[in-house]
Amino acid sequence: MSSLQLLLVAGTHGNEINAPWLFNEWNKSPGVINTNGLKIAKIIGNPEALKVCKRYIDNDLNRSFRKDLLQNKNIQDYEAIRAREIVDTFGPEGSKPCQIAIDFHSTTSAMGSSIVIYGRRPADLAIASLLQSRLGLPVYLHESDNTQMGFLVESWPCGLVIEIGPVPQGLLHADTIEKTKLVLQYLLDEVVKLRSGLTNFPDEIVIHRHVESIDFPRSPEGKPQAFVHPMRQGADWLPIREGSPLFMKLDGTVVSFKGHDSLVPVFINEAAYAEKKIAMSLTKREVWNLSKDCHDAINYLINDAYLV
Amino acid sequence: MSSLQLLLVAGTHGNEINAPWLFNEWNKSPGVINTNGLKIAKIIGNPEALKVCKRYIDNDLNRSFRKDLLQNKNIQDYEAIRAREIVDTFGPEGSKPCQIAIDFHSTTSAMGSSIVIYGRRPADLAIASLLQSRLGLPVYLHESDNTQMGFLVESWPCGLVIEIGPVPQGLLHADTIEKTKLVLQYLLDEVVKLRSGLTNFPDEIVIHRHVESIDFPRSPEGKPQAFVHPMRQGADWLPIREGSPLFMKLDGTVVSFKGHDSLVPVFINEAAYAEKKIAMSLTKREVWNLSKDCHDAINYLINDAYLV
Repeated sequence: MSSLQLLLVAGTHGNEINAPWLFNEWNKSPGVINTNGLKIAKIIGNPEALKVCKRYIDNDLNRSFRKDLLQNKNIQDYEAIRAREIVDTFGPEGSKPCQIAIDFHSTTSAMGSSIVIYGRRPADLAIASLLQSRLGLPVYLHESDNTQMGFLVESWPCGLVIEIGPVPQGLLHADTIEKTKLVLQYLLDEVVKLRSGLTNFPDEIVIHRHVESIDFPRSPEGKPQAFVHPMRQGADWLPIREGSPLFMKLDGTVVSFKGHDSLVPVFINEAAYAEKKIAMSLTKREVWNLSKDCHDAINYLINDAYLV
Repeated sequence: MSSLQLLLVAGTHGNEINAPWLFNEWNKSPGVINTNGLKIAKIIGNPEALKVCKRYIDNDLNRSFRKDLLQNKNIQDYEAIRAREIVDTFGPEGSKPCQIAIDFHSTTSAMGSSIVIYGRRPADLAIASLLQSRLGLPVYLHESDNTQMGFLVESWPCGLVIEIGPVPQGLLHADTIEKTKLVLQYLLDEVVKLRSGLTNFPDEIVIHRHVESIDFPRSPEGKPQAFVHPMRQGADWLPIREGSPLFMKLDGTVVSFKGHDSLVPVFINEAAYAEKKIAMSLTKREVWNLSKDCHDAINYLINDAYLV
């Protein structure tokens, strides 16, 4: 019997309430999700923020898993303490060790269901490829962004974020719950299959690789002077070209896209990113071969080799 | 020349950011809205809440215009103070008196553009009928609800709320800005026409009269046990019948509507109303004759009689 334990996280942001609601109801009715005997640790990332329906109390928990923050016990803001607590308990060397972490989020962007991975870790790519192959989910690879670091799943040898949108913050929402439940069930099924050695990996994975984030046009006082153009609002995953409408001002003036051809915007107008000065992120769509390293990495984790 | 002054309010709730943004840009480019010489006072209802993108600081400003709160200067929460400040300055007896107040809101409900009136004041009905006649806007009449009182516009002899949705809180949103601007421009045009005596009132007005609000099914600890059914989510203004699906639990159990035939839900799943224990409000659709009292009431206000 494998020692594999999966960490499932909901409510890392306290105003993304659908996955926490699902976890809570799942606790009450274990039969609604089929776990096939998998060992699962299920936690609310930021319970204090969830109580008050805010993204965070002091700082964004999903930027609080930087090594320097985890190692410095003098930092006493709520999310730094909570990040250390989660890693100390459920980290790969924790008291209830988990090897894979899946972090369920929602977004106000019209991204549908998607996967976010951080860096090019082979085991992450392996799991992402399986979910993409089963459900067609697009994959956003976040890397090379020194202003956004310290994501929760980076503290595990394998981990990825599931994003579901569009949904307003603080709103219990039928579609979002249904989509979250669907991805969760498929994910568990794939992990069970991996453990049984029955997995056929796809040959390729389609990646949307982060290139840069762009901000709203702002006034000298820092206020947005334009909104996302109506033709771009809701058009996540659709390529943008030089000259395409990007923002619009109140008087109808259009701010066009100036940049490389064939970039693909994601997280268009995510409400929580306005304070991070991100109106959207631009990605490059690439098809990668899924190397044998990826199969090996996930099998290594699943089959206890990591634990020995 | 009429002494009429119109009070326009945005950001009565600090996380409804589109109308405040529009007002701010309009200040910078006065030409984007045609005022035809109307005297207008334009204010941000809750500037402190807007700064932190929260609905309110201490209490809901749009429940803080109750007479007892306005008269009791000992009550020192931020919104009570702000309500008194607004009435003392822009109220009908204030230092910069206004006779009509229009309060611009947004909602996460899929209500499109609509009008909310409080009680059956003839002048409110007159203006609502003109906007309905020009733009087809539905009218929600909020009355007979002792748990929800103290709305801003009730402190003026004439006043109504414009609601635009669906839009997440805290999100600058092309459609919402465009719709807010459109209603604002039509409203000003109608007031200008009223002043010129050129108005033809419609004979009838369609009203959605508040009957009751209903809450989510809740656990003994007060947590929602079900979400709005996918067939009802987004279906504002569409009649609901005995036995229609209303809520759904995680295991797929459907909670059906038990009640009078032919009620029409509004504010379905408005994020801000969860704390008020309102999952939606039910209304009765009625066609009223627009009496001559309504024409007289608005003409009386517009033509200074009120001020003498």
